Amino acid sequence: MAAPIDFYFDFSSPYGYLASERIDALAARHGRSVVWRPFLLGAVFKTTRTEPLLNIPLKGDYARRDIERSARALGVPYRLPESFPFLSVAACRAFYWLAGERPDLARDLAQALYRRAFAEGGDISRADSVVAVAEGLGVERPALEAALQDAEVKDRLRREVEAAVATGVFGSPFMVVDGEPFWGNDRLDAVERWLETGGW
Amino acid sequence: MAAPIDFYFDFSSPYGYLASERIDALAARHGRSVVWRPFLLGAVFKTTRTEPLLNIPLKGDYARRDIERSARALGVPYRLPESFPFLSVAACRAFYWLAGERPDLARDLAQALYRRAFAEGGDISRADSVVAVAEGLGVERPALEAALQDAEVKDRLRREVEAAVATGVFGSPFMVVDGEPFWGNDRLDAVERWLETGGW
Repeated sequence: MAAPIDFYFDFSSPYGYLASERIDALAARHGRSVVWRPFLLGAVFKTTRTEPLLNIPLKGDYARRDIERSARALGVPYRLPESFPFLSVAACRAFYWLAGERPDLARDLAQALYRRAFAEGGDISRADSVVAVAEGLGVERPALEAALQDAEVKDRLRREVEAAVATGVFGSPFMVVDGEPFWGNDRLDAVERWLETGGW
Repeated sequence: MAAPIDFYFDFSSPYGYLASERIDALAARHGRSVVWRPFLLGAVFKTTRTEPLLNIPLKGDYARRDIERSARALGVPYRLPESFPFLSVAACRAFYWLAGERPDLARDLAQALYRRAFAEGGDISRADSVVAVAEGLGVERPALEAALQDAEVKDRLRREVEAAVATGVFGSPFMVVDGEPFWGNDRLDAVERWLETGGW
């Protein structure tokens, strides 16, 4: 079977949310699976000398409009959370705690968190918000609450972020297909052509 | 007749070059003309707290690869000039000097300059390089040499750059269709859908 697609994203990234609504079906059309890899975009801002997109003059105003327009084009519900950008450390830790034992559930949690934030405009920055979403998927509250403070889980996230940066990931969403990097929700059509043609 | 499409670009922008090879035909398919509007991207870097794309760690490496891949996908010849990024003030002044009296020739000059830089990898940063390309299109050397030093031409360029920034332009290429802004070569497909559908 062909190698899975690596799907890097930050839980605080609206374009990452939009891509998350398409990536699995897109991959499946070409017999591929997807490894969801949340990371902390803020960790590379120093390297790339940048900052959260929507905070940037001119570019931020454009992006707000473009994200809404892109969501309408895809037919995906979209709402920017009141508090934005937000910290996504708790969401990432919850994901990686689940990912080892139950990767499918981790993926479902990621999707549920993204929808809570960007379809409903809810908060997913606080540990208790993340736990509430996870409980809705049958995750046991005490175990997750403990995991969010667990040193091994914290380490795992740190390693994942370092590995993402070492791979050259600097934005969200960021897809890697057979070693070929694609940055941005608007590159998903290119990802699909790459899968169809084997590259060009 | 429907309003023309505004096509903003910096002569030093590889993605602007790629878009310049498609924009006129795309517009013509929908009964639109294009107003080519070169500007100086560096003038907005302070506002958007950014810098030339290819200089940015991680992002620059990705962009080099993505530009080549995009050029291959479009079947457009591409070569990065040895000296890059480069100053595009002389190219812009030559363009706007011609644009008043002979807009079609100004557009042809813009295309010839872009191809000299990014299809052949030549220099278009120096006044004499710009003059040489213009001469190939029948422009008289002494008149252009004088224009490149002319206070009115300098003022015209300054006003054009200010107008672009006031419109919200912060990147290259940047297209405005009936008031709707689109940033990036990879938004040309969206521009085409917008023209087809009247927006969404």
